[in-house]
Amino acid sequence: MLAQTPAPPYYAVIFSSVLSEETTGYTEMSKLMVNLASQQAGYLGHESARNEVGITVSYWKDLESIKIWKQNLDHQEAQTLGKLKWYQCYKTRICKVERDYGFEI
Amino acid sequence: MLAQTPAPPYYAVIFSSVLSEETTGYTEMSKLMVNLASQQAGYLGHESARNEVGITVSYWKDLESIKIWKQNLDHQEAQTLGKLKWYQCYKTRICKVERDYGFEI
Repeated sequence: MLAQTPAPPYYAVIFSSVLSEETTGYTEMSKLMVNLASQQAGYLGHESARNEVGITVSYWKDLESIKIWKQNLDHQEAQTLGKLKWYQCYKTRICKVERDYGFEI
Repeated sequence: MLAQTPAPPYYAVIFSSVLSEETTGYTEMSKLMVNLASQQAGYLGHESARNEVGITVSYWKDLESIKIWKQNLDHQEAQTLGKLKWYQCYKTRICKVERDYGFEI
């Protein structure tokens, strides 16, 4: 269930959000976008969880892949709807993963 | 509820985990660690959510602050207990936040 990412360096987009009260269509669009993102060149995986705050981290090969995904037309439509309807607030952080380590039983 | 971070560059530690079936003491230790982390030099904030996967992102001024927090004795004890008892698997990613942007109603 954790994203299986390659050895660093690679990139992470941390998308943190708080939903508004109007969430009609949000879950469907979320699933669509995860599906669409996973088909993009340079996509390496993602992890997602939501309680009061929702956090989705998507992992990418390089900045160019992130830029192309941000400009994808369907994704832009989802971003517009997100601002208009679904999100009370959000923050996107573009990060270079410099080091990682893990543990698995 | 979103972390109020300064202008980049700063650092993010993405800690993604799946819990094991033995979670006794986990919630209490989590709260203790968030509290302790927030008192460390260089701590800038954090965001956290858990469903099947738990994601905690903590934000830091620089790599040195992250290193000192990792070596904190109480934190090391929590890390050891985490490996022994609470986590089925986890991954820690140390990232440099290069750019961020957001939206608030």
